[in-house]
Amino acid sequence: MATLHEPKQDRSRATRQRLLEATIDCLAQTGWAAATVAVVAERAGVSRGAAQHHFPTREDLITAALEYMFDSRTEQAKEEAAQVRAADGVSRTEAVVAGLVESYTDPLFKAALQVWTHAAADPALRERIVPLEARFGRVSHRRAIEALGVDDGDPVTHHLVQATLDLARGLGLADVLTDDSVRRKAIVHQWAVTLHAALNAPRESA
Amino acid sequence: MATLHEPKQDRSRATRQRLLEATIDCLAQTGWAAATVAVVAERAGVSRGAAQHHFPTREDLITAALEYMFDSRTEQAKEEAAQVRAADGVSRTEAVVAGLVESYTDPLFKAALQVWTHAAADPALRERIVPLEARFGRVSHRRAIEALGVDDGDPVTHHLVQATLDLARGLGLADVLTDDSVRRKAIVHQWAVTLHAALNAPRESA
Repeated sequence: MATLHEPKQDRSRATRQRLLEATIDCLAQTGWAAATVAVVAERAGVSRGAAQHHFPTREDLITAALEYMFDSRTEQAKEEAAQVRAADGVSRTEAVVAGLVESYTDPLFKAALQVWTHAAADPALRERIVPLEARFGRVSHRRAIEALGVDDGDPVTHHLVQATLDLARGLGLADVLTDDSVRRKAIVHQWAVTLHAALNAPRESA
Repeated sequence: MATLHEPKQDRSRATRQRLLEATIDCLAQTGWAAATVAVVAERAGVSRGAAQHHFPTREDLITAALEYMFDSRTEQAKEEAAQVRAADGVSRTEAVVAGLVESYTDPLFKAALQVWTHAAADPALRERIVPLEARFGRVSHRRAIEALGVDDGDPVTHHLVQATLDLARGLGLADVLTDDSVRRKAIVHQWAVTLHAALNAPRESA
Protein backbone atom coordinates (compact mmCIF):
# COMPACT_ATOMS: atom_id res chain seq x y z
CA MET A 1 0.00 0.00 0.00
CA ALA A 2 2.61 2.50 1.12
CA THR A 3 4.64 1.90 -2.04
CA LEU A 4 1.61 2.36 -4.27
CA HIS A 5 0.66 5.66 -2.62
CA GLU A 6 4.12 7.13 -2.27
CA PRO A 7 4.38 8.78 -5.70
CA LYS A 8 1.02 10.52 -5.15
CA GLN A 9 2.09 11.65 -1.68
CA ASP A 10 5.38 12.88 -3.14
CA ARG A 11 3.54 14.89 -5.77
CA SER A 12 1.26 16.36 -3.12
CA ARG A 13 4.24 17.29 -0.96
CA ALA A 14 6.00 18.90 -3.92
CA THR A 15 2.88 20.91 -4.82
CA ARG A 16 2.56 22.09 -1.23
CA GLN A 17 6.22 23.12 -1.14
CA ARG A 18 5.96 25.04 -4.43
CA LEU A 19 2.94 26.93 -3.08
CA LEU A 20 4.73 27.83 0.15
CA GLU A 21 7.85 29.06 -1.65
CA ALA A 22 5.77 31.07 -4.15
CA THR A 23 3.90 32.69 -1.25
CA ILE A 24 7.13 33.98 0.31
CA ASP A 25 8.37 35.27 -3.07
CA CYS A 26 5.05 37.02 -3.80
CA LEU A 27 4.86 38.68 -0.39
CA ALA A 28 8.51 39.79 -0.51
CA GLN A 29 8.35 41.11 -4.08
CA THR A 30 4.81 42.38 -4.60
CA GLY A 31 3.61 43.08 -1.04
CA TRP A 32 0.64 42.04 1.05
CA ALA A 33 -2.25 43.17 -1.17
CA ALA A 34 -1.01 41.41 -4.31
CA ALA A 35 -0.20 38.09 -2.64
CA THR A 36 -3.57 36.38 -3.12
CA VAL A 37 -4.14 32.61 -3.38
CA ALA A 38 -4.88 32.99 -7.12
CA VAL A 39 -1.62 34.87 -7.82
CA VAL A 40 0.45 32.48 -5.70
CA ALA A 41 -1.12 29.42 -7.38
CA GLU A 42 -0.34 30.82 -10.82
CA ARG A 43 3.25 31.57 -9.83
CA ALA A 44 3.63 28.04 -8.45
CA GLY A 45 2.11 26.50 -11.60
CA VAL A 46 -0.71 24.95 -9.56
CA SER A 47 -4.47 25.19 -10.28
CA ARG A 48 -6.43 27.42 -7.94
CA GLY A 49 -8.54 24.42 -6.91
CA ALA A 50 -5.47 22.40 -5.94
CA ALA A 51 -4.12 25.37 -3.99
CA GLN A 52 -7.40 25.68 -2.10
CA HIS A 53 -7.39 21.93 -1.42
CA HIS A 54 -4.06 22.36 0.39
CA PHE A 55 -4.85 25.73 1.98
CA PRO A 56 -8.56 26.59 2.37
CA THR A 57 -7.93 30.27 3.17
CA ARG A 58 -5.31 32.89 2.31
CA GLU A 59 -4.40 33.11 6.03
CA ASP A 60 -3.79 29.32 6.11
CA LEU A 61 -1.45 29.62 3.12
CA ILE A 62 0.45 32.60 4.49
CA THR A 63 0.98 31.31 8.02
CA ALA A 64 2.02 27.88 6.66
CA ALA A 65 4.51 29.58 4.32
CA LEU A 66 6.09 31.60 7.12
CA GLU A 67 6.39 28.50 9.32
CA TYR A 68 7.79 26.33 6.52
CA MET A 69 10.43 28.89 5.51
CA PHE A 70 11.40 29.64 9.10
CA ASP A 71 11.84 25.93 9.87
CA SER A 72 13.86 25.35 6.66
CA ARG A 73 16.12 28.27 7.57
CA THR A 74 16.59 26.93 11.10
CA GLU A 75 17.63 23.54 9.70
CA GLN A 76 20.09 25.23 7.35
CA ALA A 77 21.46 27.36 10.21
CA LYS A 78 22.13 24.19 12.23
CA GLU A 79 24.41 22.93 9.46
CA GLU A 80 26.22 26.28 9.25
CA ALA A 81 26.62 26.37 13.04
CA ALA A 82 29.18 23.54 12.97
CA GLN A 83 31.39 25.70 10.75
CA VAL A 84 31.01 28.71 13.08
CA ARG A 85 32.00 26.61 16.09
CA ALA A 86 35.34 25.90 14.45
CA ALA A 87 36.28 29.58 14.93
CA ASP A 88 36.82 31.04 18.38
CA GLY A 89 37.14 34.35 20.18
CA VAL A 90 35.84 37.50 18.55
CA SER A 91 35.87 35.83 15.07
CA ARG A 92 33.24 33.37 16.25
CA THR A 93 31.12 36.16 17.75
CA GLU A 94 31.37 38.17 14.53
CA ALA A 95 30.48 35.13 12.39
CA VAL A 96 27.39 34.50 14.53
CA VAL A 97 26.25 38.15 14.48
CA ALA A 98 26.88 38.43 10.72
CA GLY A 99 24.95 35.20 9.99
CA LEU A 100 22.07 36.28 12.21
CA VAL A 101 21.84 39.76 10.71
CA GLU A 102 22.00 38.45 7.13
CA SER A 103 19.07 36.12 7.89
CA TYR A 104 16.99 39.27 8.58
CA THR A 105 17.59 40.64 5.09
CA ASP A 106 16.35 37.58 3.16
CA PRO A 107 12.99 37.11 1.39
CA LEU A 108 11.52 35.42 4.49
CA PHE A 109 12.09 38.58 6.57
CA LYS A 110 10.71 40.79 3.80
CA ALA A 111 7.63 38.53 3.50
CA ALA A 112 7.15 38.39 7.28
CA LEU A 113 7.38 42.20 7.44
CA GLN A 114 4.46 42.46 5.00
CA VAL A 115 2.40 40.08 7.14
CA TRP A 116 3.37 41.57 10.54
CA THR A 117 2.60 45.10 9.27
CA HIS A 118 -0.77 44.09 7.84
CA ALA A 119 -1.59 42.19 11.07
CA ALA A 120 -1.13 45.42 13.06
CA ALA A 121 -4.54 46.57 11.78
CA ASP A 122 -6.23 43.16 11.29
CA PRO A 123 -7.18 41.58 14.67
CA ALA A 124 -8.02 38.12 13.19
CA LEU A 125 -4.64 37.87 11.44
CA ARG A 126 -2.86 39.29 14.47
CA GLU A 127 -4.31 36.47 16.60
CA ARG A 128 -2.69 33.90 14.27
CA ILE A 129 0.60 35.78 13.93
CA VAL A 130 1.35 36.57 17.59
CA PRO A 131 2.06 32.92 18.62
CA LEU A 132 4.12 32.47 15.44
CA GLU A 133 6.20 35.58 16.25
CA ALA A 134 6.73 34.32 19.81
CA ARG A 135 7.92 30.91 18.57
CA PHE A 136 10.26 32.46 15.96
CA GLY A 137 11.70 34.69 18.71
CA ARG A 138 12.31 31.77 21.11
CA VAL A 139 13.91 29.56 18.43
CA SER A 140 16.13 32.40 17.13
CA HIS A 141 17.27 33.21 20.66
CA ARG A 142 18.14 29.57 21.43
CA ARG A 143 19.97 29.25 18.11
CA ALA A 144 22.06 32.38 18.84
CA ILE A 145 22.91 31.17 22.37
CA GLU A 146 24.10 27.80 20.99
CA ALA A 147 26.09 29.37 18.16
CA LEU A 148 27.82 31.77 20.55
CA GLY A 149 28.39 29.00 23.09
CA VAL A 150 27.34 31.21 26.02
CA ASP A 151 25.29 30.70 29.20
CA ASP A 152 21.76 32.05 28.84
CA GLY A 153 21.26 31.71 32.62
CA ASP A 154 23.40 34.82 33.08
CA PRO A 155 21.03 37.82 32.82
CA VAL A 156 23.62 40.09 31.16
CA THR A 157 24.23 37.45 28.49
CA HIS A 158 20.50 36.84 28.04
CA HIS A 159 19.76 40.54 27.48
CA LEU A 160 22.74 41.13 25.21
CA VAL A 161 21.70 38.23 22.97
CA GLN A 162 18.13 39.57 22.94
CA ALA A 163 19.52 43.00 22.00
CA THR A 164 21.49 41.40 19.15
CA LEU A 165 18.26 39.90 17.76
CA ASP A 166 16.55 43.30 18.06
CA LEU A 167 19.50 44.94 16.29
CA ALA A 168 19.24 42.33 13.51
CA ARG A 169 15.50 43.10 13.15
CA GLY A 170 16.25 46.83 12.94
CA LEU A 171 18.97 46.26 10.33
CA GLY A 172 16.54 44.07 8.38
CA LEU A 173 14.00 46.90 8.33
CA ALA A 174 16.69 49.37 7.19
CA ASP A 175 17.34 47.14 4.16
CA VAL A 176 13.77 47.07 2.85
CA LEU A 177 13.78 50.22 0.67
CA THR A 178 17.47 50.46 -0.21
CA ASP A 179 20.52 48.19 -0.27
CA ASP A 180 22.00 48.91 3.16
CA SER A 181 24.76 46.25 2.99
CA VAL A 182 27.82 48.55 3.16
CA ARG A 183 26.64 50.47 6.23
CA ARG A 184 25.38 47.22 7.79
CA LYS A 185 28.78 45.53 7.51
CA ALA A 186 30.45 48.24 9.60
CA ILE A 187 27.67 48.10 12.23
CA VAL A 188 27.89 44.30 12.47
CA HIS A 189 31.66 44.49 12.99
CA GLN A 190 31.43 47.12 15.72
CA TRP A 191 28.52 45.36 17.44
CA ALA A 192 30.39 42.03 17.39
CA VAL A 193 33.52 43.57 18.98
CA THR A 194 31.41 45.32 21.66
CA LEU A 195 29.23 42.25 22.29
CA HIS A 196 32.26 39.97 22.58
CA ALA A 197 33.93 42.24 25.14
CA ALA A 198 30.69 42.56 27.15
CA LEU A 199 29.97 38.79 27.09
CA ASN A 200 33.47 38.08 28.35
CA ALA A 201 33.78 40.92 30.90
CA PRO A 202 33.97 39.83 34.55
CA ARG A 203 30.51 40.10 36.18
CA GLU A 204 30.13 42.54 39.07
CA SER A 205 28.02 40.03 40.97
CA ALA A 206 30.64 37.25 40.55
CA MET B 1 -3.31 93.48 4.45
CA ALA B 2 -1.40 90.94 6.55
CA THR B 3 -3.68 91.59 9.51
CA LEU B 4 -6.78 91.16 7.39
CA HIS B 5 -5.59 87.82 6.01
CA GLU B 6 -4.18 86.35 9.20
CA PRO B 7 -7.33 84.73 10.55
CA LYS B 8 -7.89 82.97 7.21
CA GLN B 9 -4.26 81.84 7.13
CA ASP B 10 -4.57 80.61 10.71
CA ARG B 11 -7.67 78.61 9.82
CA SER B 12 -5.88 77.16 6.81
CA ARG B 13 -2.86 76.23 8.92
CA ALA B 14 -5.09 74.61 11.56
CA THR B 15 -6.93 72.60 8.89
CA ARG B 16 -3.65 71.42 7.44
CA GLN B 17 -2.37 70.41 10.86
CA ARG B 18 -5.58 68.47 11.68
CA LEU B 19 -5.27 66.58 8.37
CA LEU B 20 -1.62 65.69 9.03
CA GLU B 21 -2.33 64.46 12.57
CA ALA B 22 -5.37 62.45 11.39
CA THR B 23 -3.22 60.84 8.68
CA ILE B 24 -0.71 59.55 11.25
CA ASP B 25 -3.51 58.26 13.50
CA CYS B 26 -5.27 56.50 10.59
CA LEU B 27 -2.09 54.84 9.32
CA ALA B 28 -1.03 53.73 12.81
CA GLN B 29 -4.46 52.41 13.81
CA THR B 30 -6.09 51.14 10.62
CA GLY B 31 -3.11 50.45 8.35
CA TRP B 32 -2.08 51.49 4.85
CA ALA B 33 -5.11 50.36 2.83
CA ALA B 34 -7.71 52.09 5.02
CA ALA B 35 -5.86 55.43 5.27
CA THR B 36 -7.37 57.13 2.21
CA VAL B 37 -7.80 60.91 1.77
CA ALA B 38 -11.59 60.52 2.26
CA VAL B 39 -11.21 58.64 5.56
CA VAL B 40 -8.53 61.04 6.85
CA ALA B 41 -10.64 64.10 5.89
CA GLU B 42 -13.66 62.70 7.74
CA ARG B 43 -11.57 61.95 10.83
CA ALA B 44 -10.14 65.49 10.75
CA GLY B 45 -13.62 67.01 10.33
CA VAL B 46 -12.60 68.56 7.00
CA SER B 47 -14.46 68.33 3.69
CA ARG B 48 -12.89 66.11 1.05
CA GLY B 49 -12.59 69.13 -1.26
CA ALA B 50 -10.69 71.12 1.35
CA ALA B 51 -8.40 68.14 1.99
CA GLN B 52 -7.66 67.86 -1.74
CA HIS B 53 -7.02 71.60 -1.93
CA HIS B 54 -4.22 71.16 0.64
CA PHE B 55 -2.97 67.79 -0.63
CA PRO B 56 -3.78 66.94 -4.27
CA THR B 57 -2.83 63.24 -3.90
CA ARG B 58 -2.79 60.63 -1.17
CA GLU B 59 1.01 60.42 -1.50
CA ASP B 60 1.28 64.21 -0.94
CA LEU B 61 -0.79 63.90 2.22
CA ILE B 62 1.10 60.92 3.59
CA THR B 63 4.63 62.22 2.96
CA ALA B 64 3.67 65.66 4.38
CA ALA B 65 2.24 63.95 7.48
CA LEU B 66 5.41 61.92 8.08
CA GLU B 67 7.58 65.04 7.66
CA TYR B 68 5.38 67.19 9.89
CA MET B 69 5.27 64.63 12.71
CA PHE B 70 8.98 63.90 12.48
CA ASP B 71 9.84 67.62 12.65
CA SER B 72 7.44 68.18 15.59
CA ARG B 73 9.03 65.29 17.44
CA THR B 74 12.52 66.63 16.76
CA GLU B 75 11.52 70.04 18.20
CA GLN B 76 10.09 68.33 21.29
CA ALA B 77 13.24 66.23 21.66
CA LYS B 78 15.38 69.39 21.65
CA GLU B 79 13.45 70.64 24.69
CA GLU B 80 13.85 67.31 26.48
CA ALA B 81 17.58 67.22 25.66
CA ALA B 82 18.31 70.06 28.10
CA GLN B 83 16.92 67.86 30.90
CA VAL B 84 19.02 64.87 29.79
CA ARG B 85 22.19 66.97 29.76
CA ALA B 86 21.69 67.69 33.48
CA ALA B 87 22.43 64.00 34.21
CA ASP B 88 25.87 62.55 33.63
CA GLY B 89 27.72 59.25 33.35
CA VAL B 90 25.75 56.10 32.64
CA SER B 91 22.46 57.75 33.76
CA ARG B 92 22.74 60.21 30.88
CA THR B 93 23.49 57.42 28.40
CA GLU B 94 20.53 55.42 29.67
CA ALA B 95 18.20 58.45 29.50
CA VAL B 96 19.26 59.07 25.88
CA VAL B 97 18.87 55.41 24.84
CA ALA B 98 15.49 55.13 26.62
CA GLY B 99 14.18 58.33 25.03
CA LEU B 100 15.37 57.27 21.61
CA VAL B 101 13.88 53.78 21.85
CA GLU B 102 10.54 55.08 23.15
CA SER B 103 10.31 57.40 20.12
CA TYR B 104 10.30 54.25 17.93
CA THR B 105 7.18 52.89 19.63
CA ASP B 106 4.96 55.95 19.08
CA PRO B 107 2.20 56.43 16.46
CA LEU B 108 4.66 58.11 14.06
CA PHE B 109 6.82 54.97 13.94
CA LYS B 110 3.75 52.75 13.51
CA ALA B 111 2.47 55.01 10.71
CA ALA B 112 5.90 55.14 9.04
CA LEU B 113 6.13 51.34 9.20
CA GLN B 114 2.88 51.07 7.23
CA VAL B 115 4.24 53.45 4.58
CA TRP B 116 7.79 51.97 4.40
CA THR B 117 6.33 48.43 4.07
CA HIS B 118 3.90 49.45 1.35
CA ALA B 119 6.67 51.36 -0.47
CA ALA B 120 8.70 48.12 -0.67
CA ALA B 121 6.39 46.97 -3.49
CA ASP B 122 5.40 50.39 -4.93
CA PRO B 123 8.28 51.98 -6.91
CA ALA B 124 6.62 55.43 -7.22
CA LEU B 125 6.04 55.67 -3.47
CA ARG B 126 9.49 54.26 -2.76
CA GLU B 127 11.04 57.08 -4.80
CA ARG B 128 9.34 59.63 -2.52
CA ILE B 129 10.08 57.77 0.70
CA VAL B 130 13.79 56.98 0.24
CA PRO B 131 14.99 60.62 0.58
CA LEU B 132 12.65 61.06 3.56
CA GLU B 133 14.07 57.96 5.26
CA ALA B 134 17.62 59.23 4.62
CA ARG B 135 16.82 62.64 6.15
CA PHE B 136 15.10 61.09 9.21
CA GLY B 137 18.17 58.86 9.69
CA ARG B 138 20.62 61.80 9.51
CA VAL B 139 18.60 63.99 11.88
CA SER B 140 18.09 61.15 14.39
CA HIS B 141 21.80 60.35 14.34
CA ARG B 142 22.79 63.99 14.93
CA ARG B 143 20.25 64.31 17.72
CA ALA B 144 21.62 61.18 19.46
CA ILE B 145 25.23 62.42 19.14
CA GLU B 146 24.29 65.78 20.70
CA ALA B 147 22.25 64.21 23.49
CA LEU B 148 25.09 61.81 24.37
CA GLY B 149 27.66 64.61 24.10
CA VAL B 150 30.11 62.39 22.18
CA ASP B 151 32.47 62.91 19.22
CA ASP B 152 31.00 61.55 15.98
CA GLY B 153 34.41 61.89 14.30
CA ASP B 154 35.53 58.78 16.18
CA PRO B 155 34.52 55.79 14.00
CA VAL B 156 33.79 53.51 16.99
CA THR B 157 31.45 56.15 18.43
CA HIS B 158 29.84 56.76 15.04
CA HIS B 159 29.07 53.06 14.52
CA LEU B 160 27.88 52.47 18.09
CA VAL B 161 25.42 55.37 17.79
CA GLN B 162 24.25 54.02 14.42
CA ALA B 163 23.82 50.57 16.04
CA THR B 164 21.77 52.16 18.82
CA LEU B 165 19.40 53.64 16.22
CA ASP B 166 19.15 50.24 14.48
CA LEU B 167 18.44 48.58 17.83
CA ALA B 168 15.74 51.19 18.50
CA ARG B 169 14.17 50.43 15.09
CA GLY B 170 14.20 46.70 15.85
CA LEU B 171 12.60 47.28 19.26
CA GLY B 172 9.98 49.47 17.59
CA LEU B 173 9.11 46.64 15.19
CA ALA B 174 8.88 44.18 18.10
CA ASP B 175 6.22 46.41 19.69
CA VAL B 176 3.85 46.48 16.72
CA LEU B 177 1.78 43.34 17.44
CA THR B 178 2.12 43.09 21.22
CA ASP B 179 3.05 45.37 24.13
CA ASP B 180 6.76 44.65 24.43
CA SER B 181 7.49 47.32 27.09
CA VAL B 182 8.64 45.02 29.93
CA ARG B 183 11.18 43.11 27.83
CA ARG B 184 12.23 46.36 26.12
CA LYS B 185 13.03 48.05 29.45
CA ALA B 186 15.55 45.34 30.37
CA ILE B 187 17.18 45.49 26.90
CA VAL B 188 17.46 49.29 27.05
CA HIS B 189 19.10 49.11 30.49
CA GLN B 190 21.63 46.46 29.44
CA TRP B 191 22.49 48.18 26.16
CA ALA B 192 22.91 51.56 27.89
CA VAL B 193 25.43 50.04 30.33
CA THR B 194 27.30 48.27 27.51
CA LEU B 195 27.21 51.31 25.22
CA HIS B 196 28.44 53.64 27.97
CA ALA B 197 31.41 51.38 28.73
CA ALA B 198 32.25 51.04 25.01
CA LEU B 199 31.97 54.79 24.33
CA ASN B 200 34.31 55.50 27.25
CA ALA B 201 36.80 52.66 26.71
CA PRO B 202 40.32 53.73 25.69
CA ARG B 203 40.72 53.42 21.88
CA GLU B 204 43.33 50.95 20.62
CA SER B 205 44.43 53.45 17.98
CA ALA B 206 44.92 56.21 20.60
